[in-house]
Amino acid sequence: MRTEIATLGEFGLIDHLTKGIELKNKSSRYGVGDDAAVIKYPAVDDVLVTTDLLLEGVHFDLTYVPLKHLGYKAAIVNFSDIYAMNGNPKQITVSLGLSKRFSVEDMDELYAGIRLACEQYGVDIIGGDTTSSFTGLTISITCIGSVNKSKVVYRNGAKDTDLICVSGDLGAAYMGLQLLEREKTVFKGEKDAQPDFTGKEYLLERQLKPEARKDIIEKLAAENIVPTSMIDVSDGLSSELMHICSQSNVGCRVYEEHIPIDYQTAVMAEEFNMNLTTCAMNGGEDYELLFTVPITEHEKVSQMEGIKLIGHITKPELGTALVTRDGQEFELKAQGWNPLHEKTE
Amino acid sequence: MRTEIATLGEFGLIDHLTKGIELKNKSSRYGVGDDAAVIKYPAVDDVLVTTDLLLEGVHFDLTYVPLKHLGYKAAIVNFSDIYAMNGNPKQITVSLGLSKRFSVEDMDELYAGIRLACEQYGVDIIGGDTTSSFTGLTISITCIGSVNKSKVVYRNGAKDTDLICVSGDLGAAYMGLQLLEREKTVFKGEKDAQPDFTGKEYLLERQLKPEARKDIIEKLAAENIVPTSMIDVSDGLSSELMHICSQSNVGCRVYEEHIPIDYQTAVMAEEFNMNLTTCAMNGGEDYELLFTVPITEHEKVSQMEGIKLIGHITKPELGTALVTRDGQEFELKAQGWNPLHEKTE
Repeated sequence: MRTEIATLGEFGLIDHLTKGIELKNKSSRYGVGDDAAVIKYPAVDDVLVTTDLLLEGVHFDLTYVPLKHLGYKAAIVNFSDIYAMNGNPKQITVSLGLSKRFSVEDMDELYAGIRLACEQYGVDIIGGDTTSSFTGLTISITCIGSVNKSKVVYRNGAKDTDLICVSGDLGAAYMGLQLLEREKTVFKGEKDAQPDFTGKEYLLERQLKPEARKDIIEKLAAENIVPTSMIDVSDGLSSELMHICSQSNVGCRVYEEHIPIDYQTAVMAEEFNMNLTTCAMNGGEDYELLFTVPITEHEKVSQMEGIKLIGHITKPELGTALVTRDGQEFELKAQGWNPLHEKTE
Repeated sequence: MRTEIATLGEFGLIDHLTKGIELKNKSSRYGVGDDAAVIKYPAVDDVLVTTDLLLEGVHFDLTYVPLKHLGYKAAIVNFSDIYAMNGNPKQITVSLGLSKRFSVEDMDELYAGIRLACEQYGVDIIGGDTTSSFTGLTISITCIGSVNKSKVVYRNGAKDTDLICVSGDLGAAYMGLQLLEREKTVFKGEKDAQPDFTGKEYLLERQLKPEARKDIIEKLAAENIVPTSMIDVSDGLSSELMHICSQSNVGCRVYEEHIPIDYQTAVMAEEFNMNLTTCAMNGGEDYELLFTVPITEHEKVSQMEGIKLIGHITKPELGTALVTRDGQEFELKAQGWNPLHEKTE
């Protein structure tokens, strides 16, 4: 079943994709269907705005990424940026550029993923733009969220002696990508070949269906902890640590032995003959939260499930360094996942 | 002088393009440089959100559109959507996808246009995303604006007997596009040929450097007029009238003789042997404001400079029609400028 998008036209396609969308958040006043959407937040809230542009061939490869997963992930990466400010995502706009290769059914799949993510995280779709493209799929999502005005967390508030914490584990999404790329090469041309991902499901899930750490923001709020700085790990731990340190004008020490890594990530790195710590430090797309708290919160954060203490903030003159298991210090470098670097150089 | 974007990288390019940007609006709390921007509006305001995705080859042709003009227009089309809600644009985010064809200097030009538009209209650039692209230039802008909560104007409030008003004149941007396309064809391959646009400057300006009608919103406010419905003319007068009528569940009569058309537009239509009224009704990209007011406002609006009364709202069963000079009625059809239709069919 393949319905050409041209049979619906722009307005028809928008109607088709957005029908049945109900606005659930009180802050969403008017959604799709006018020149602009209308939102309204109470005076106690600051409003957060973030945006991500995803291009086919640069950010995703449709030979192994199902459209529904892509839609889910495209929404999640935006939610993650809002959580990284200690906020809660509430609305998104979704703009799509589509080439003739895509059918109405394809867009249904993509939108199903976006809508699923929105349902899971309590976000409303309030608008967007849809247009044709000569060259594959373009997805541009803008996310709006709220945060109590006394609780916004920036990247620039880390202080000497603060503890550095990270949620979940790192490097798995990168390993999932390596695995998918390998299988794509292996099976190229063999139409019916089925790659075997047994025992590597976690890596694929981290790459194809990442989650944003709403739960961590809720736990921190429940414990009455407001981090001094926070960022989400999209480009790799090294790169994010350097953002926090440069914007806070501090240094840091992170300890290799404390970096949380899943068993499957380690097995895969071994199989690929890659340095595991490098994968965890520079892999990216983890969408975990990296944050700092005053040392007085040590007891609280060290007992929180899903959070690891990986180091501490120092005076700026000490620089930013990774301390290896044998006690050597290596200056952090941002070799993170950076489409502009990787693809244009 | 050509500096490759890869020499700066993503973060370097963002720093380069956004350096020196100052936030001028009180509602802009924190701009570029964190996971999300922070804004805050007073309780008396509703917040408006609109977004536009522009793709090279679909929405613009860089053989005749200078990058600075493109940047200006990309911002303006978003501002226009906010004015169409009776609001004022306050912030934008700018996402760019760039192929290797573009240099840092090219992006400086594009950004100069965006920044100029922002200065002229009092808008802050608060964030965005920059990434590489394999295929030309992608521009995705989201605009946020404010409107006093009792003054939001939707498309769905038009009532029987309301007057239909439009600002400025129509069809000129479309004629400018035809002119540019013709000159492109004529001069293809002749490197030093200079097209002669004497006497047609207005058409080019309307196509290449449109303005959004902030002045009209201000005039309406000064006269204490809140339109019953409003939309901006981006896809063509016919298409926009049909949006207002279907969303308001009303009909309309617009009079051919009252449609405002500039002299240069008329001359050009004659030269191209095109039907002038069709150009004005379906050309699009005018970025004028189309709105309805109660008939009791007749005296006020008929005296406002830059606003023309072109018809009136009727009961829904009368349908939507254009009344020609000889009194015939033609049902409105949306043949408007629609990239999805035109390019994918």
